[in-house]
Amino acid sequence: MTQNLLIRNARPLGGAPVDLVIRDGRFSPPGDQPPAEVIDAAGFIALPGLVEAHTHLDKTLIGMDWYENRVGPTRNDRILADREAKRDLGIDARRQSARQVLQTLKYGVLHIRSHVDVDTEIGTANIEGVIETREAVRDLVDVQIVAFPQSGMLPRAGTLDLMDTAMRAGADIVGGIDPATIDRDPVRHLDEIFALAERYGKPIDIHLHEPGDLGAFCLELIVERTRALAMQGRVMVSHAYCLGMLDPARQRALIEAMAAENISVMTVGSPAAPALPLRLMRECGLTTASGSDGIQGTWEPWGNGDMVERAKYLAQRNGMTNDADLAETMRICTVGGAEGIGLSGYGFAEGDFGDLVLVPARTLAEAVALTPQKRTVIRRGRMLVRDGEQVADLSGRFSL
Amino acid sequence: MTQNLLIRNARPLGGAPVDLVIRDGRFSPPGDQPPAEVIDAAGFIALPGLVEAHTHLDKTLIGMDWYENRVGPTRNDRILADREAKRDLGIDARRQSARQVLQTLKYGVLHIRSHVDVDTEIGTANIEGVIETREAVRDLVDVQIVAFPQSGMLPRAGTLDLMDTAMRAGADIVGGIDPATIDRDPVRHLDEIFALAERYGKPIDIHLHEPGDLGAFCLELIVERTRALAMQGRVMVSHAYCLGMLDPARQRALIEAMAAENISVMTVGSPAAPALPLRLMRECGLTTASGSDGIQGTWEPWGNGDMVERAKYLAQRNGMTNDADLAETMRICTVGGAEGIGLSGYGFAEGDFGDLVLVPARTLAEAVALTPQKRTVIRRGRMLVRDGEQVADLSGRFSL
Repeated sequence: MTQNLLIRNARPLGGAPVDLVIRDGRFSPPGDQPPAEVIDAAGFIALPGLVEAHTHLDKTLIGMDWYENRVGPTRNDRILADREAKRDLGIDARRQSARQVLQTLKYGVLHIRSHVDVDTEIGTANIEGVIETREAVRDLVDVQIVAFPQSGMLPRAGTLDLMDTAMRAGADIVGGIDPATIDRDPVRHLDEIFALAERYGKPIDIHLHEPGDLGAFCLELIVERTRALAMQGRVMVSHAYCLGMLDPARQRALIEAMAAENISVMTVGSPAAPALPLRLMRECGLTTASGSDGIQGTWEPWGNGDMVERAKYLAQRNGMTNDADLAETMRICTVGGAEGIGLSGYGFAEGDFGDLVLVPARTLAEAVALTPQKRTVIRRGRMLVRDGEQVADLSGRFSL
Repeated sequence: MTQNLLIRNARPLGGAPVDLVIRDGRFSPPGDQPPAEVIDAAGFIALPGLVEAHTHLDKTLIGMDWYENRVGPTRNDRILADREAKRDLGIDARRQSARQVLQTLKYGVLHIRSHVDVDTEIGTANIEGVIETREAVRDLVDVQIVAFPQSGMLPRAGTLDLMDTAMRAGADIVGGIDPATIDRDPVRHLDEIFALAERYGKPIDIHLHEPGDLGAFCLELIVERTRALAMQGRVMVSHAYCLGMLDPARQRALIEAMAAENISVMTVGSPAAPALPLRLMRECGLTTASGSDGIQGTWEPWGNGDMVERAKYLAQRNGMTNDADLAETMRICTVGGAEGIGLSGYGFAEGDFGDLVLVPARTLAEAVALTPQKRTVIRRGRMLVRDGEQVADLSGRFSL
């Protein structure tokens, strides 16, 4: 961490070329000593670490046998298939989460918020597995763990106690899921998870797929509780499809109400789900993050976890093609994500953590459109990936 | 073309492993002579050449300066920006089309239908440029050229004559565009392009973005003319967004009417456009092809032309995640495309052209989900690409 690194000719977030100095793991002013190492960034764009604000590290099947998906189309079909798969495929949450973290490190994903299943069949085994990975990669990638009641919480007796156990075991965030359509009692569901968050002094992140006015109602309940418990800046709503399904007046009012409580939204930009009004959300100052959701699992067979490609998905889903809009989607996958999941020391200012991803592109828009793969990834002044190839020796750290 | 090639252990369309023999450029029964060359396909999936059924070879900016897109959101904004770009950027249709053809050859795209602009500013220069490329790649890739009135036909006097000139110059297909919203006279627009097609004995391919009932009305006019002129099997409708915007009864009736005249549909699966009802279309026997649309141009900054990735887009847009559905989207990007653009000798039967693409995947669904890049591409028994790297010497053939 005492290494002194000079990166010449990098363009932070696509801006003018600068030289960056990292000393003791943080961006620093140029000092008197010559740098121990000099890197020529060749005018590439520098991003301050990609932020994966929503994935499911415990459920990826990377490197396992191909899973033949015969699952029906409803969310409930998928929840059942998912629970079956956890049982039948012997998915090892520790190993699988490590595989995904290493895969996405090559893209420059340095911060991950992962929902991790808690249910009455597996208990907190997945939480414990992903905690092992979180600790093993602590100096490479920040991993935040959300205790997530995927199969429902209130209808499945014992789940709430397991959520409590998960928080005691070291989960970082309290999760929730569809208070109405899955848990069948929106007020009680939200009261319980807000109480849990208060008890452990932790943030909240709620999966909210509820449609239209039902979703809007749940969002109102979330806004009320965030205000009442002074949880501003500590509540994220994931998906929030309803925001893309309301009439314009109601849509704006709700977005403004969320922004006023500094609630953030995570959207994947899924091609088959309602598109969130990204421009309006930005105009209203609503913090917006993005994520890959599950990759290569029983829910969806695809996904690579590349958050630059995710910026492209966001733009494509919103019919955005001009450069300014593409730069905005890249902002969502970097600084928006950092704000949304509550990172500190994120950016290129002096004193910020010395993390950066060099992307060979002329503009942010080009990076989003073409997702160049030969990236260089530096964490706290240490080169981990060079031109798309892992250069740091991480052997002995995991069993994969 | 007399080369005798044996490909061992390939799995056509993901089926059981077989050995394939290519002799004189066609799939043949095993002969008495030992093969001149043997390839071990290692159990990879074999596809009979990817089919790009809809792109704009004359407008890609591959390898040119980054185009800063400041274009407004409407189709008309984009048409104007596109025409300006052709004038101001000096896009060389011959060179650019060759670049795209070579780029997509690496993915295994062996058949391309390209719309090529005809308008009163550039005349038929782009048609002539892409014809040069078509001839230069004749033994590598089939290129079909659609004379396409991008800027409108009836409202811009002289365009129809230029379309006629384009057909005489060697265009393969008569194009059309939004008979109502762009050309303002659906009957006359369609009458003119069907007349042109009849005069030259060529097929038709119409860009139809018209929404909802307006689009449905235009489709009915197309069905009527196809029937009246006995053009069954020779009419494609590109995009046909309206099919995704109708109530179920009207949707089904229209799809059945199109299928009855053997009209085909091309859909890109754009995340921002209405999703076409792929399952219903298949059920009704409507031939469905797919394409990349423009890649890396003024319309859309992204795109690589990989038709395996396109199958993934189709699945994602339709919320399809199970293996059977993914196999179906791959079918659309191969045999559906071949039917749609009227190829003959396409497939793995004896006598079919000896073309194949080996994709390292266990199932079609895995290929779609993960789009493996290290493909091997064989055309008429000749290896062009091996493990993702071009191996055929194509130098001297183009100036790029």
